[in-house]
Amino acid sequence: MVNENSATPAAIRALIEGELATFLGVQKTYLESIGSELTPASDALSSFLLDGGKRLRPLFAYFGFIGAGGSHSQEIIRACASLELLQACALIHDDLMDGSDTRRGKPAIHKHFEKLHSKESAVGSSVGFGQAAAILLGDLALVYSDLALHQSGIKNEMLPQVLAVHDEMRVELMAGQFLDIYEQTRSSHTVERALTIARYKSGKYTIERPLHFGASLATTDNNHLAEVTSHYSGYGLPLGEAFQLRDDLLGVFGDPELTGKPAGDDLREGKRTVLVATAQESMSAVDIKAFESQFGRSDLDSNAIAILRQILTDSGAIEHVENLITKLTNTAVEALDTPAITTEARQVLSELAITATKRSH
Amino acid sequence: MVNENSATPAAIRALIEGELATFLGVQKTYLESIGSELTPASDALSSFLLDGGKRLRPLFAYFGFIGAGGSHSQEIIRACASLELLQACALIHDDLMDGSDTRRGKPAIHKHFEKLHSKESAVGSSVGFGQAAAILLGDLALVYSDLALHQSGIKNEMLPQVLAVHDEMRVELMAGQFLDIYEQTRSSHTVERALTIARYKSGKYTIERPLHFGASLATTDNNHLAEVTSHYSGYGLPLGEAFQLRDDLLGVFGDPELTGKPAGDDLREGKRTVLVATAQESMSAVDIKAFESQFGRSDLDSNAIAILRQILTDSGAIEHVENLITKLTNTAVEALDTPAITTEARQVLSELAITATKRSH
Repeated sequence: MVNENSATPAAIRALIEGELATFLGVQKTYLESIGSELTPASDALSSFLLDGGKRLRPLFAYFGFIGAGGSHSQEIIRACASLELLQACALIHDDLMDGSDTRRGKPAIHKHFEKLHSKESAVGSSVGFGQAAAILLGDLALVYSDLALHQSGIKNEMLPQVLAVHDEMRVELMAGQFLDIYEQTRSSHTVERALTIARYKSGKYTIERPLHFGASLATTDNNHLAEVTSHYSGYGLPLGEAFQLRDDLLGVFGDPELTGKPAGDDLREGKRTVLVATAQESMSAVDIKAFESQFGRSDLDSNAIAILRQILTDSGAIEHVENLITKLTNTAVEALDTPAITTEARQVLSELAITATKRSH
Repeated sequence: MVNENSATPAAIRALIEGELATFLGVQKTYLESIGSELTPASDALSSFLLDGGKRLRPLFAYFGFIGAGGSHSQEIIRACASLELLQACALIHDDLMDGSDTRRGKPAIHKHFEKLHSKESAVGSSVGFGQAAAILLGDLALVYSDLALHQSGIKNEMLPQVLAVHDEMRVELMAGQFLDIYEQTRSSHTVERALTIARYKSGKYTIERPLHFGASLATTDNNHLAEVTSHYSGYGLPLGEAFQLRDDLLGVFGDPELTGKPAGDDLREGKRTVLVATAQESMSAVDIKAFESQFGRSDLDSNAIAILRQILTDSGAIEHVENLITKLTNTAVEALDTPAITTEARQVLSELAITATKRSH
């Protein structure tokens, strides 16, 4: 039975944030018992985790749990919240690898520590210190995600199956990230490769696997688990793709006030997204030349960004991608139409499909 | 009962390496099913893990298990082997953070991918690609260490207690690493701070926690586990310190042919070790000035290295540290004198104390 306070995504989000704050508070005390020099590390991680975030992965995990017949408990909230720590690792390392200096309108972790180092006129390279701190804080967040899951209080009998899903989603994430950095080094690109990267790096990791993670916390009945898991893939895979396509659009056209990232950030970083690969298939030779001469330049000004945006729009890719998002979202929502998923979860997952794909940040 | 083939560290090392090879083979097949672009990533990780390494952490874990009354099994070998994957993460990220370009006589992972990128004349920055690949391969190795442990086949009832030790050792490792990079940015140093860093970053992580990890796989009798764990700390903490002090000496005086690192590597990197902090307490003002003007310069030639070595020797720190290693090792071995640890393990752990502290690489 789900209690009244836990029925809506907003209420669950609040519970997740509460558990994250509690967990990070305990860890801060522990780190400071080793050395006060660790205070900046725990403060940076707390601020990174608590000052924003849509909590999509914990929410999908939680409603995946409810949909598989689970009953609300604080232990489940804690287990689901652990995915937000994994996401912190992914974002911290991603920002460093991409040289992306802003996150949610604030300095990325590597920039934050670079600035701390400069301000203190400390010994050695500020950039190097910022990079090293971001590598370690990402590692620490990854270990914390394990710790939070293990200490959540979930039943021991659930542990092997939830660990298996958790491991698989993390291997997929790292594989997708590796494909992504490799793709940026290639001189030719295809929509198909861009789709594979998006699927592993983002789609499966954001939606399908969190749902499976939640389901694996709800039941040890293998048949029931297999059935629910399969329906969740039917919902999660197309929705994950739609989620990533929305991200592609926001990376080019998003409002900096809402995304917390500079305007046209993906254009400056030269991100080989599905959007860009799709657009390039329909561009004229002249447009391809104009696009490639500017795309990925870190010094793009607002004028150059406007030109690149126009080329993308002229290619028809924006309209195509918007239609695709709608189509994929519909396919996802239709997959919820099964008695294998509880009625309550079906309703919330329909809402979350909109949250994930119609967002402005 | 331990079978005849599993009684010596050399035999256990061979079993561990066999399990690592099997594990990495399975993972390689999986990654390649996602995309052939992942082949260089799996190959680099396999070569990094299989072409060398003392396997100290798995060995301490295994004999920690035997000492707590455990009976040999392939499942335990697999669980202990997982610690080598964690160590791969630590080394890959450490080399990147330190800008240390050589590992076991071969290019470090970031250098390896930097070279691959250059050789292919790929798009973008070779250095940037090398860094990103090293971040991701370290992350992947960390996730693999979890996966290897979870899939080892150890009994479900052991899982919560072994996960707790595993999490603690990883948080300690990351905390120690953070203290280390922070220390390099300070303008003054103390032996006490250097000792704390060495304890968390290396000592506990290399010896005490692997022993605890092994013990937690051997028994669910809380009293027995607590007793063995306490004796292991009596052995592992001083031995861990001695291990790190030997590392400090090898980083300055080690033979490159044996260490696989350039001569005087720690002097070029300006590593603030216990050895250096101890030496500085006894240096003359003239020597301190001469030392600080060269220490940490990446362009040190063999002449400059010889001068720095002489200053360290003249300070009396080398002799002091050698005496300390002997004293700490003796203290460690004396702590084994308890019936709480099985006779067989006591003998092997006495040998491993020598392996860990009298080594040339």
